[in-house]
Amino acid sequence: MSPATRSEESRQAIIEAALGLCVERGFASTTIEGIAARAGVGKTTIYRWWPSKAAILIEGVENARDAAAGFPDTGDIRADLAAQTSSVMRLFNTEFGEIWRGLIGAAQSDEAAAEGVTRILRVSIDACVERLATARDAGQIRTDLDLEMAVELLYGPIYHTWLLRTRPLPEAYMESVLATLLPALVPAPDPH
Amino acid sequence: MSPATRSEESRQAIIEAALGLCVERGFASTTIEGIAARAGVGKTTIYRWWPSKAAILIEGVENARDAAAGFPDTGDIRADLAAQTSSVMRLFNTEFGEIWRGLIGAAQSDEAAAEGVTRILRVSIDACVERLATARDAGQIRTDLDLEMAVELLYGPIYHTWLLRTRPLPEAYMESVLATLLPALVPAPDPH
Repeated sequence: MSPATRSEESRQAIIEAALGLCVERGFASTTIEGIAARAGVGKTTIYRWWPSKAAILIEGVENARDAAAGFPDTGDIRADLAAQTSSVMRLFNTEFGEIWRGLIGAAQSDEAAAEGVTRILRVSIDACVERLATARDAGQIRTDLDLEMAVELLYGPIYHTWLLRTRPLPEAYMESVLATLLPALVPAPDPH
Repeated sequence: MSPATRSEESRQAIIEAALGLCVERGFASTTIEGIAARAGVGKTTIYRWWPSKAAILIEGVENARDAAAGFPDTGDIRADLAAQTSSVMRLFNTEFGEIWRGLIGAAQSDEAAAEGVTRILRVSIDACVERLATARDAGQIRTDLDLEMAVELLYGPIYHTWLLRTRPLPEAYMESVLATLLPALVPAPDPH
């Protein structure tokens, strides 16, 4: 096994250990010591590659996100938004959601975590803006709509309730949001 | 000075110290030791009243919020929403915003902080729902609208960008949000 291969295996083991511990113990109780012990490496090995536990978790989330990148495009923007926002809501209720929650929490006081969270979201937001632009060109979205703001209108309500823990969301939540919001995003009906 | 008065003065001193330190050093670097030193009390005095620094800050934020409770009601729901959401956005850019950000961050992994954040928001959300209900009765808001969801549509975009730090918001952000969103919340124009 070449040093580069061994190195890559150690990196993966560290990321897996960090994700696993974060799921089991929560973000606050995950430590570099614990990650090192589970991955079978020394702390110095970890610090050679990452400055903090948040940085390791960000790389793990980024890898998972890249594997499932892109926005569905069936040609029907309403169906695609319903499918994509519902899958985000489902994801929030999984172990991944707990890791993501921990990182967003850390991002409120840790500059490196904040940068990582912003970088991860930027790719998702850009994919949604691109899909909305395609829909706009197909006449399904108003031409005068600020697409970045449209993304915030679409995902803001989910993040609002999930991060601020104001209420448990009904399963059909995004259907209600889209039923209310979409009429404001689509072109006005032709009066003729 | 009676023991009750002295006790109340100590409580206020502790809350002031916690808020001050959180503004100066950030939430993560604020400690019970630091709060005790600045307030001139022992750590045991603090722990007699609060289980954590988050609990002290929650009480401070709650007091400030209660002093400025209620939702404006000029009779014009559009103007009132514009005024209230803009003042929330301005608040986010103050020292209070940094304290609130720290508490929401802590709420992602600390059950007591989460409970406090939820309790604080519940009062604000209920005030907004009540204002929307008055507007609905005045014919300014659709009768079939889920008012709790309407609050999430209104405030979700601000919290989305502010907590996820996806972009700096333009000053007129809420004007754009309201211009896009409100047509979906008001009654459909009478076709006759």
